[in-house]
Amino acid sequence: MTTLSPTLELACELIRRASVTPLDEGCQQLMMERLAACGFTVEPMNIEDVDNFWARRGGEGPVLCFAGHTDVVPTGPLEAWQHAPFAAFVDEEGMLRGRGAADMKGSLAAMLVAVERFVADHPLHRGAIAFLITSDEEGPALHGTQAVVERLAKRNERLDWCIVGEPSSTSLVGDMVKNGRRGSLNGHLRVRGVQGHVAYPHLAKNPIHLAAPALAELAGEHWDAGNAFFPPTSFQISNLNSGTGTTNVIPGELNCLFNFRFSTESTVEGLQQRVEAILDKHGLDWQVDWSLSGLPFLTEPGALLDAVSASIREVTGRETVASTSGGTSDGRFIATLGTQVVELGPVNATIHQVNERVLASDLELLTEIYYQTLVRLLAN
Amino acid sequence: MTTLSPTLELACELIRRASVTPLDEGCQQLMMERLAACGFTVEPMNIEDVDNFWARRGGEGPVLCFAGHTDVVPTGPLEAWQHAPFAAFVDEEGMLRGRGAADMKGSLAAMLVAVERFVADHPLHRGAIAFLITSDEEGPALHGTQAVVERLAKRNERLDWCIVGEPSSTSLVGDMVKNGRRGSLNGHLRVRGVQGHVAYPHLAKNPIHLAAPALAELAGEHWDAGNAFFPPTSFQISNLNSGTGTTNVIPGELNCLFNFRFSTESTVEGLQQRVEAILDKHGLDWQVDWSLSGLPFLTEPGALLDAVSASIREVTGRETVASTSGGTSDGRFIATLGTQVVELGPVNATIHQVNERVLASDLELLTEIYYQTLVRLLAN
Ligand SMILES: [Zn+2]
Ligand SMILES: [Zn+2]
Repeated sequence: MTTLSPTLELACELIRRASVTPLDEGCQQLMMERLAACGFTVEPMNIEDVDNFWARRGGEGPVLCFAGHTDVVPTGPLEAWQHAPFAAFVDEEGMLRGRGAADMKGSLAAMLVAVERFVADHPLHRGAIAFLITSDEEGPALHGTQAVVERLAKRNERLDWCIVGEPSSTSLVGDMVKNGRRGSLNGHLRVRGVQGHVAYPHLAKNPIHLAAPALAELAGEHWDAGNAFFPPTSFQISNLNSGTGTTNVIPGELNCLFNFRFSTESTVEGLQQRVEAILDKHGLDWQVDWSLSGLPFLTEPGALLDAVSASIREVTGRETVASTSGGTSDGRFIATLGTQVVELGPVNATIHQVNERVLASDLELLTEIYYQTLVRLLAN
Repeated sequence: MTTLSPTLELACELIRRASVTPLDEGCQQLMMERLAACGFTVEPMNIEDVDNFWARRGGEGPVLCFAGHTDVVPTGPLEAWQHAPFAAFVDEEGMLRGRGAADMKGSLAAMLVAVERFVADHPLHRGAIAFLITSDEEGPALHGTQAVVERLAKRNERLDWCIVGEPSSTSLVGDMVKNGRRGSLNGHLRVRGVQGHVAYPHLAKNPIHLAAPALAELAGEHWDAGNAFFPPTSFQISNLNSGTGTTNVIPGELNCLFNFRFSTESTVEGLQQRVEAILDKHGLDWQVDWSLSGLPFLTEPGALLDAVSASIREVTGRETVASTSGGTSDGRFIATLGTQVVELGPVNATIHQVNERVLASDLELLTEIYYQTLVRLLAN
């Protein structure tokens, strides 16, 4: 058996801690010890049942923060895995296997090893390096990054650039980074009718019949055209339920959950007003409970995106694509500090699935990309 | 305490037997004994777990059958009742109270007492009198009237006229009779899409979005205009379900239960074809499982309806209204024998509810109406 590289060694150590959200299982302790050993001031920020920490090394000047999470999603049925999910090993095909290999213990290891090397090579770097690590990104995410960011904002902590280690790559490491995310807005629509017997429809008001034309209009609506950075805003109904289960009763209410993924061309208020106008137009007795999951954020081309793109080009020879597609991430919370945020991590093909894995050599490349980005932004 | 009339006495005896569907609890034994005592040939027809009987008295000539059920719907929560549901008594306001008072042990008592009196007064009546009684009208109704009718059909039993004792009256006894019922056709629609994540709608096909315009069109469709005897055919969606419960997943399938109550202006095949054409027009990947609950039946004005109307007029002074509105009844099975079928019973205001009750004096009037109808149709 060959010796593993420092990045793979650390990735395996982290994967073997079964930190299913919101558990941390000592991952952060391990990271904090190594950061303290290379001159970081580490600050645990455990909030409610969630472990988080903030660490910082350096003085005045620009701050580059690495952000990520130690928690992983549940394994699902163990019998569907080809191996124990928390065993952590590199297989014959050179894949590092285990829950969290791609999302995102591989990135955490690459960040830490890159920073250790950078600090060793550039002990007198300019500005500061920081880490913002949570154990609740995959869960409700209330007491994780969001809460830490609130504390940092209160004390006016400076945070110019942030690299989030989310698996942004699609088929080759570095082929894509995320320079923003769409906003996410949820609605719970209730349409009230009048319950009755199917044999006496004139005594009832069927909320399914009343709502169907409005739902058809909402599903067909063109919300915006997107822009250079964002695809058009999309609307999806995820759940629709009405009826008592029996076939001879006209239900009294219809319930519907929907979600907007919205670009910077639309606002929360604008989308709400347009939905409500369509419901009114169809004469419905309606109620919508809105909940905002995240505002859109965008990091336009600038120092961070330039440094990341140049480092990817240097290490892999690839021209990366900056995209705002996909789900939301904790980047949206960090961006509220006025920070430039880019997500850069390994290939996401197996995340949240059984047999999660990532090419071991990709983690070496990722370590090198993080290192080169540090050099570009903070070397004197 | 005053003595109860024979009809009320028998109604109370029947109500005190807690024959919640499909139980009979000896109601039919009691009826068969009394019918045998006045010259009926009684024939129990217990099929699977359901008690039924057929009884007949008389010779050649036209046959008038009384049909009904001894089972009652469950009481629901006892604490919602003002009295024990199976106590059976006449209150200070002259209401006979108890589960089954209106649906339909009051009618059974009135039929039996009317027949006893008619046979005593007209021992040499023409034609024949029959009873077709089941204990599974309120349940699945598979082994009740439908099964008995199949046996009667096999042996070519003649059945010219049938009075079903269902509570047909709306506010005063005899104000309405049912001379037909609409058909009932159920459909279970499945629309298939492709499951996915709400953040990646281009990789999914949302069956809710695809189905909404088709459901709107089905809900707005004009199926027929009805006719002199039937209201227009109505279509109602009773259940609509799609979604996994989570807000970030586009569901893979939509399920929908719907029901037609249809007039004799539409056919089963015609309705099916029109639904399927609408689903095809909207390009859906659909499947419908159809189940026919009952074909429509209609008793046009003739000897039975004339005799019933004249008897109601004579006994109550009222002009009855013949209607085909409301749910289905076992009358639809009997009508398949080519029989003229009319439903005539007490006021239905409290059926299937707590504190079920009927005006005691209405049951006396109902007994007299049944008696006069027997006289009109079978007296020599
Ligand atoms: Zn992640
Ligand atoms: Zn009934």
